[in-house]
Amino acid sequence: MTFPAPLTGVVPPVCTPLTPGREVDVPSLLRLVDHLVGAGVHGLFVLGSTSESAFLTDAQRRLVVEAVAGHVGGRLPVLAGAIDMTTPRVLEHVRAVTAAGAEAVVVTAPFYARTHPSEIVHHYRRIAALSPVPVIAYDIPVAVHTKLPPELVLGLAGDGVLAGVKDSSGDLAAFRELVTGARAHPGFAVLTGSELIADAALALGADGAVPGLANVDPHGYVRLYRQCRAGDWEGARAEQDRLCALFGLTGAGDPARMGGSSSALGAFKAALRLRGVIDCAVTAEPQVPLSGEETEKVAKYLAAAGLL
Amino acid sequence: MTFPAPLTGVVPPVCTPLTPGREVDVPSLLRLVDHLVGAGVHGLFVLGSTSESAFLTDAQRRLVVEAVAGHVGGRLPVLAGAIDMTTPRVLEHVRAVTAAGAEAVVVTAPFYARTHPSEIVHHYRRIAALSPVPVIAYDIPVAVHTKLPPELVLGLAGDGVLAGVKDSSGDLAAFRELVTGARAHPGFAVLTGSELIADAALALGADGAVPGLANVDPHGYVRLYRQCRAGDWEGARAEQDRLCALFGLTGAGDPARMGGSSSALGAFKAALRLRGVIDCAVTAEPQVPLSGEETEKVAKYLAAAGLL
Amino acid sequence: MTFPAPLTGVVPPVCTPLTPGREVDVPSLLRLVDHLVGAGVHGLFVLGSTSESAFLTDAQRRLVVEAVAGHVGGRLPVLAGAIDMTTPRVLEHVRAVTAAGAEAVVVTAPFYARTHPSEIVHHYRRIAALSPVPVIAYDIPVAVHTKLPPELVLGLAGDGVLAGVKDSSGDLAAFRELVTGARAHPGFAVLTGSELIADAALALGADGAVPGLANVDPHGYVRLYRQCRAGDWEGARAEQDRLCALFGLTGAGDPARMGGSSSALGAFKAALRLRGVIDCAVTAEPQVPLSGEETEKVAKYLAAAGLL
Amino acid sequence: MTFPAPLTGVVPPVCTPLTPGREVDVPSLLRLVDHLVGAGVHGLFVLGSTSESAFLTDAQRRLVVEAVAGHVGGRLPVLAGAIDMTTPRVLEHVRAVTAAGAEAVVVTAPFYARTHPSEIVHHYRRIAALSPVPVIAYDIPVAVHTKLPPELVLGLAGDGVLAGVKDSSGDLAAFRELVTGARAHPGFAVLTGSELIADAALALGADGAVPGLANVDPHGYVRLYRQCRAGDWEGARAEQDRLCALFGLTGAGDPARMGGSSSALGAFKAALRLRGVIDCAVTAEPQVPLSGEETEKVAKYLAAAGLL
Repeated sequence: MTFPAPLTGVVPPVCTPLTPGREVDVPSLLRLVDHLVGAGVHGLFVLGSTSESAFLTDAQRRLVVEAVAGHVGGRLPVLAGAIDMTTPRVLEHVRAVTAAGAEAVVVTAPFYARTHPSEIVHHYRRIAALSPVPVIAYDIPVAVHTKLPPELVLGLAGDGVLAGVKDSSGDLAAFRELVTGARAHPGFAVLTGSELIADAALALGADGAVPGLANVDPHGYVRLYRQCRAGDWEGARAEQDRLCALFGLTGAGDPARMGGSSSALGAFKAALRLRGVIDCAVTAEPQVPLSGEETEKVAKYLAAAGLL
Repeated sequence: MTFPAPLTGVVPPVCTPLTPGREVDVPSLLRLVDHLVGAGVHGLFVLGSTSESAFLTDAQRRLVVEAVAGHVGGRLPVLAGAIDMTTPRVLEHVRAVTAAGAEAVVVTAPFYARTHPSEIVHHYRRIAALSPVPVIAYDIPVAVHTKLPPELVLGLAGDGVLAGVKDSSGDLAAFRELVTGARAHPGFAVLTGSELIADAALALGADGAVPGLANVDPHGYVRLYRQCRAGDWEGARAEQDRLCALFGLTGAGDPARMGGSSSALGAFKAALRLRGVIDCAVTAEPQVPLSGEETEKVAKYLAAAGLL
Repeated sequence: MTFPAPLTGVVPPVCTPLTPGREVDVPSLLRLVDHLVGAGVHGLFVLGSTSESAFLTDAQRRLVVEAVAGHVGGRLPVLAGAIDMTTPRVLEHVRAVTAAGAEAVVVTAPFYARTHPSEIVHHYRRIAALSPVPVIAYDIPVAVHTKLPPELVLGLAGDGVLAGVKDSSGDLAAFRELVTGARAHPGFAVLTGSELIADAALALGADGAVPGLANVDPHGYVRLYRQCRAGDWEGARAEQDRLCALFGLTGAGDPARMGGSSSALGAFKAALRLRGVIDCAVTAEPQVPLSGEETEKVAKYLAAAGLL
Repeated sequence: MTFPAPLTGVVPPVCTPLTPGREVDVPSLLRLVDHLVGAGVHGLFVLGSTSESAFLTDAQRRLVVEAVAGHVGGRLPVLAGAIDMTTPRVLEHVRAVTAAGAEAVVVTAPFYARTHPSEIVHHYRRIAALSPVPVIAYDIPVAVHTKLPPELVLGLAGDGVLAGVKDSSGDLAAFRELVTGARAHPGFAVLTGSELIADAALALGADGAVPGLANVDPHGYVRLYRQCRAGDWEGARAEQDRLCALFGLTGAGDPARMGGSSSALGAFKAALRLRGVIDCAVTAEPQVPLSGEETEKVAKYLAAAGLL
């Protein structure tokens, strides 16, 4: 299939189920894909932050893409993160994930190295020049400690370097600037990474959403997307309110014992296990697992949202 | 050879010379090693931040370690960075660099993922359990956006998990806490990563220094180290003053055009080329090269320091 | 008049016009008030950040409140900032501005001193206990370098300590948490400080907006507010788009020459002078004035928005 | 007396003892001054951060300066902080504290307002032009969230705008740049605000130290200063080690209950009360008081340092 221009709809960043020994649990991964596709999502994003991409070895990353792309078989677009520190290392991942079947790559600004906007521009230009598939910018300051300036992204959109942007910055004013500026670039996709203000982002004119919580409740986000597209803002607000309440599960882990990734990713996986989608809720090292009590909390959020 | 406990002296983070096509320039790399060894340095640290480790592919990283370890042949200890985001990915690098001959690995806190002290502890414990060689913690908040708390490092020193720490945090008060605390752990090495306050760090009782500028002027840092060890604090201060002036070359690149890595690493390489040590000053992508005028500035710093 | 519970509508943070000698220009200030009141705004907020409160002496602050409260004469509510570092100093301002006629005070978290949530709670409790008028929390992390946690604000709302919150944090997800939580506290006002996503904030259920740009175009924000209240989201989006374009004037000042306050506040005042509302565009020291060329840019934004 | 150029020696930032009702406790304050002067300190800095300047009302600030300057009667220089957000407000404090007897004023970069180096320069120029006494820059990024660039400070030193700098940034490499650059400006004082690396700062060539902990142990810092001046670096290191251990008392307060200011300033005052210097350890609001157990910890630190 041709990659859609622009990409639209709900595109969950797919969790990566692991076995107790911390290998990729392919059967669980494929059940998760079926769970998402069955709910009507419009694309799949593997090897993102929610996928624990930062924790997966190169072999595990490759296996994930092969398994998902092979299973989906072109029914909907499969994007893959090519998450690494700088251009040469990202390019290795671009080669690997596209060989494994990814139809677009999602790339952050350089990190670890101190960077500059001119270097970010060169980074994306170089990657786009060598990538066989469209490149989507991934704006995630909490991870890379740089915010992609909207005018930089729009400049690269105008030059055909970028096919879209996934904005996980939380800055809706900057997001609006992207949406407004992207009107001049019809094939360019502006996607929000927010679980909590997806309705607001879509109301502004976003093309779609990439919410981690859609692993747990894909039907909810698909409903929300349809309501927004239909202009049913009241319905959308009610659905979003429900999803915001459900999002509380990401705080199940005790912040005195673990970091935010452990809590949020651990809770997504606990929820997927409780819903019977995956076999095991283990997360990659060095993340701290949720306790039994913390998993109980996740169950309560699911029950309150009508998901158990 | 047995890895020294504690590691002491001047241990330069070795630059990685590249060809114009951005492959590792092994002959230049080995000339750089000879330049450092000939000046009397006490160890070599490859694949650190100054080595552009964040920019090198896995194949390039392996080649660097093999070339340097093979060339050095046990004459002095070779440490290698195992720089990556999280435990499983770091462990892959530990396997690769130790197979290639590294006698110790240098490991940062997790990055990209949001982390927590308990996760950092688990990260180091897990790596040390699986590493065939000693593990040295690398505290570099400017890159990983986490400061290693001294008490965390000292706890791991006490448990035999860590063999040392390279502190590039710039926080001399916290460094002093490390030095003071490490008196209880005789084999544990406390090393400063600072070019500018190496004399002060050694005066506090640091075991050694890992200054990027030692690529350019290894004789200066070896002199400084010997003066400090001999208690010649006046001589050390004068030498350090000279090195601080020389360090000005790292600001040769225009900050309106490039980031700090481009400027500093570009200047180190320009200086090494001007001094006839390496063939080509190119840095890895997406870094911005120094202009001719900026390279002139580097030459002036070298001349002022008596190095041209 | 009784202070409304909750406060609703458009409540501009009123600029403080200065004379060329940097005294408060009372006639210009009153013309600005008339300009705002005439446009139908619902309240006035003096001595906020946009008012250059941080730059005004105590005598100037008092003069501003007296002039505005006296001129308004109870026709609409007048809120005043009591902006200072800690509880005792804020309390002095509370006394001064309420003596001068303010009907509510707007108070940030402590700044300069390193603070803790329990101290922020105590700060607000103490101020509310001693204030003769309602207290509104002012969440402005860019200035005070602390984000007020939504649950802290809502706890104080529940206890009757706070009568509202002005959120200038830019974090719409946290703002949504405030709006949702405030449903349990009917008299509590949740106000956005954003110029750029006022429509989104109102769509979520915000009670009102406190946009600095409303000095320049109060009619625009009043229209936007009415459209949102009427459920005319398409009209609101178009109006907001126009205001977002106009907001570009805040970037008129060259960032190589001046900080963000100089540029934004200088541009608001230049616009007010160009529109004939105030006599002089001078800002307080040490702010850098806009150049003639930069003022030209402001004029172009006004013209494009149909305001000249 | 003429203000010394440069100011040298140990210049404690004097704590402000309060009564249980949180008024300035003048008798305790004067006993504290005697305690410091008797130990041989070389100057007194009132209304600094350690003095809880950020928490004192204008009347309290004035009272402190009058009491201390009157009591000292020219025996040693009295500096006063003029801590406020911007130029006009700082100038009000400059007027007040110099009228009350301060012989130099200590001034930070602007805060609360977003600022720019050119504005910081203008700020200091304007204040120096209108101040009847020398102006000393106060570099305290933890409070004002801006680091004064060394070249900016040195430029103002060269122009005679600044008479010195108190560096509480913790960045010893930048401090060295100040010391080195200040050699060209013989009357300009470079003072460290660090308790923990005062010996290192003096070894680099600092003119003096302004350590908050000198309230508790002025004899220790005076000894340390004399050892450094005499070139007794071993003795200085031992003394500094003792003071570093004593500094542990600043962590007596539980970080889960209070901020860093509450803990450190509360511990200084608890120590002064335990040592019989002041009557009451209360700190200004909204700071959290130390518990009995936490005060016990302070006592243990004092005992271990031989101060009880």
